[in-house]
Amino acid sequence: MLEKSILLLLLQLSVLGITLGGNVLIWPVDGSHWLNIKIIIDELINKQHNVTVLVSSGAFYIKPISNSYLTYERYKVPFEGEKMLEVIGNFILAWMKNKPTPSTIWRFYQEIGPPIKDFNALNREMCDGVLKNQKLMKKLKKSKFEVLVSDPVFPCGDIIALKLGIPFIYSLKYYPASTVEKHCGKIPYPPSYVPAVLSELTDQMSFTDRIRNFISYHLQDYMFDTLWKSWDAYYSEALGRPTTLCETMGKAEIWLLRTYWDFEFPRPYLPNFEFVGGLHCKPAKPLPKEIEEFVQSSGEHGIVVFSLGSMVKNLTEEKANLIASGLAQIPQKVLWRYQGKKPATLAANTRIYDWIPQNDLLGHPKTKAFITHGGTNGIYEGIYHGVPMVGVPMFADQHDNIAHMKAKGAAVEVNMHTMTSAELRDALKTVIYEPSYKENAMRLSSIHHDQPVKPLDRAVFWIEFVMRHKGAKHLRPAAHNLTWFQYHSLDVIGFLLACMATVIFLVTKCCLFSCRKFGKTGKKKKRE
Amino acid sequence: MLEKSILLLLLQLSVLGITLGGNVLIWPVDGSHWLNIKIIIDELINKQHNVTVLVSSGAFYIKPISNSYLTYERYKVPFEGEKMLEVIGNFILAWMKNKPTPSTIWRFYQEIGPPIKDFNALNREMCDGVLKNQKLMKKLKKSKFEVLVSDPVFPCGDIIALKLGIPFIYSLKYYPASTVEKHCGKIPYPPSYVPAVLSELTDQMSFTDRIRNFISYHLQDYMFDTLWKSWDAYYSEALGRPTTLCETMGKAEIWLLRTYWDFEFPRPYLPNFEFVGGLHCKPAKPLPKEIEEFVQSSGEHGIVVFSLGSMVKNLTEEKANLIASGLAQIPQKVLWRYQGKKPATLAANTRIYDWIPQNDLLGHPKTKAFITHGGTNGIYEGIYHGVPMVGVPMFADQHDNIAHMKAKGAAVEVNMHTMTSAELRDALKTVIYEPSYKENAMRLSSIHHDQPVKPLDRAVFWIEFVMRHKGAKHLRPAAHNLTWFQYHSLDVIGFLLACMATVIFLVTKCCLFSCRKFGKTGKKKKRE
Repeated sequence: MLEKSILLLLLQLSVLGITLGGNVLIWPVDGSHWLNIKIIIDELINKQHNVTVLVSSGAFYIKPISNSYLTYERYKVPFEGEKMLEVIGNFILAWMKNKPTPSTIWRFYQEIGPPIKDFNALNREMCDGVLKNQKLMKKLKKSKFEVLVSDPVFPCGDIIALKLGIPFIYSLKYYPASTVEKHCGKIPYPPSYVPAVLSELTDQMSFTDRIRNFISYHLQDYMFDTLWKSWDAYYSEALGRPTTLCETMGKAEIWLLRTYWDFEFPRPYLPNFEFVGGLHCKPAKPLPKEIEEFVQSSGEHGIVVFSLGSMVKNLTEEKANLIASGLAQIPQKVLWRYQGKKPATLAANTRIYDWIPQNDLLGHPKTKAFITHGGTNGIYEGIYHGVPMVGVPMFADQHDNIAHMKAKGAAVEVNMHTMTSAELRDALKTVIYEPSYKENAMRLSSIHHDQPVKPLDRAVFWIEFVMRHKGAKHLRPAAHNLTWFQYHSLDVIGFLLACMATVIFLVTKCCLFSCRKFGKTGKKKKRE
Repeated sequence: MLEKSILLLLLQLSVLGITLGGNVLIWPVDGSHWLNIKIIIDELINKQHNVTVLVSSGAFYIKPISNSYLTYERYKVPFEGEKMLEVIGNFILAWMKNKPTPSTIWRFYQEIGPPIKDFNALNREMCDGVLKNQKLMKKLKKSKFEVLVSDPVFPCGDIIALKLGIPFIYSLKYYPASTVEKHCGKIPYPPSYVPAVLSELTDQMSFTDRIRNFISYHLQDYMFDTLWKSWDAYYSEALGRPTTLCETMGKAEIWLLRTYWDFEFPRPYLPNFEFVGGLHCKPAKPLPKEIEEFVQSSGEHGIVVFSLGSMVKNLTEEKANLIASGLAQIPQKVLWRYQGKKPATLAANTRIYDWIPQNDLLGHPKTKAFITHGGTNGIYEGIYHGVPMVGVPMFADQHDNIAHMKAKGAAVEVNMHTMTSAELRDALKTVIYEPSYKENAMRLSSIHHDQPVKPLDRAVFWIEFVMRHKGAKHLRPAAHNLTWFQYHSLDVIGFLLACMATVIFLVTKCCLFSCRKFGKTGKKKKRE
């Protein structure tokens, strides 16, 4: 009887287009990136797929604990986790010192170049760690994976997939300079209304903004080419034929982008791009007792949630004191995630925690505002729960993210380097007491919640689609078969211009010839 | 108890983002277009919305039968249904005489111009019939509609919506020349790999094809401008401010396009475009007894379904005989929808019907092939049920549709004007006996069925979304605020070129000046 029920269930599932028990291989990126792909992995496991994650011996954040559905395949690399952390530290420092504006982007990439080169070197060692480990590659081949899901910010997942002869899918927020989405993914990015990443521009640009955006695109393309060019030789060697990083990336079946139109400005895209921003968001759970009591003690004023993310452990004493005294000037209770020394100016309304249940706090009805560094995950939790934000961006896409939230009327920005206590206080008062901020945050929240299919379900749907159909070739634009001058129709325009020039030349020649002949006849006639 | 259950249900529905009991206004187009929007109307009624359809007194196909959820609002126009049928007849005749290829598109539009102008004249009388009927407009305003769904192939729905102060949505397959989607909707159409409508090209183009495509785009844009230009003045007058047809169309909240990637070649689009092709398709129902018996009598050979659509009632006697004798040469049984005189050559394997249950026949397991004129609805029923096709296109988008199916390996084309009996027979044998055709048709079918949300549900979701949120402004690209030269960054490029020229000029001048000065000093020195 039970067997019959199981068989019936399996039949129903297959009619509903549900894939059971597939084998998925993951090429992750360590650190906060892991959190995003982990959500997808958990959902794949929920749907009874067997997931194998490739983890290097130098991983510092991913904790390899296998279970019946999840296998961590550990491969050896010649560096330790500390080395990666050191490079990440240098990267953040270089970024914080050199904010990339369109006018400083050149210097910015000069400064950020060395840590990126270090990343590339470690990344290549990771890639070697898998590709040159014949025993591992043999084992992977035997495991009959149906798809590889890769975070492409660290290249290599795509080569592994091609070597195993399986389709691959990307999961990313954006690639530096969007060059990859543009040139390798073939999405058109009109610089007249699509702001370049890291430009902090919005879709409403003045003439000057559009000049800055135009320059920003081209400079970033150039920088990308310079800094990532070295991968072309690696890819060619690994795949045993002349190729480029870009050409290989263009073979991705689906690009799962971790944004959506609640955050992003509307822009063109292609059918093999799926916007799954906020896939990690979920309803708030009840808070731990002590925290709930503190939250409830805020009365009608409510609370402020404050976190600068997992990468910033502590601040200078001066900065911490300045922040604490700003927070002391508001009537709300503040829950501050901070691992540094307790600031002397800390008031009774503020409590410091090593860790806070951020999502549960943001979803609490007493929450009035969120002070955030502007990481995508935090921003999306803010959007999900409709909480207005005070942004204190520091590096990477944080300035851009806050610029988006400002443009959508749901955030105020405070400059980390120059802010005063009063500025922080005023920013908080603005987002808490000017109703438009809450209204806009709620509007974004309602856009986020009102989708035909939830982001995580869409992400998993397309992974399963690729498993069921061995790819998604019907979504791949033919633009991938064209060279850049063919893509822009430059050969056609050149040919048509040449034709026109020839016609004009011939017509002119004929006219001149006729005129001369007619002139001569005329003269002759005159003479006669 | 019952009341409590209903309240609970309503609460659950609202949590699930379901809108109950909204008021929807429809601006339809008569004829086969009505069938498509009718599917959406039926689903809206299913979801308990009140739907009002604006029907002119000159409608020849729409049957106004109101019920509790559906109201037909009839308005007076100074023409009869026969007049519209006559113009449609002229349009089809002109089209069948002048097939639009890139080399003949100029002449084609010259010939098709007069019937299009006649359409425009009738269309304007329909528009006047609503806008200048103050009693009707007052009644519509009182009805508090939340959204207007318009088939934009006959303009005016958008003006009515703007006059009523409500958002509007388009439902269409494509607009002539795609000019509207491109210039008014702001979708990029790279001519290097996106074939122009009516070009019969695919996404795999040779250099010559790309030249033809490039020219086709620009000629069609020009023709559109010429033939639809007169609407600009009408729109300006109706809205009481200088505007254009294109500017007004650009205000659509959502564009529901009746194609999908099973049919379409992958190309860029924007977030306010939703591809809902095949929304009318549904599983096959059992056949009427007589037809089922005839189908079953086909044995292992199976059947062929044959229809040239609702617009072609009869053929010349010669053509009908030629077709019938072609059909006589295959072992399958044929069900032919045909209202003309019974051909003399009709064999026992072929039966003629005034009407056939086309969808139910295509979904029958005995069906081996579908002879179709290539209308979008029929093509989609073929895709839905995975039936390979023999295309006999005649006018409108039919050649294009068949070209798509040919490119995807699911159809063979036969020329209506030049075909012989043997050609029809051979085409049928090819799609029936060469396995690749069935395989490709099944592949398209599986792509069609394997979507996260069914096309009809997505269409209705976005209509309800616009009702819930009073629009979908978060999906509207900022490109709408730019002029064409701003959109293409021509002002920015011009400015940067001017800057470069100035710098080069100044540097050259400085060099020349220094050289001259240095030269003189040199000479002076020499003299000294």
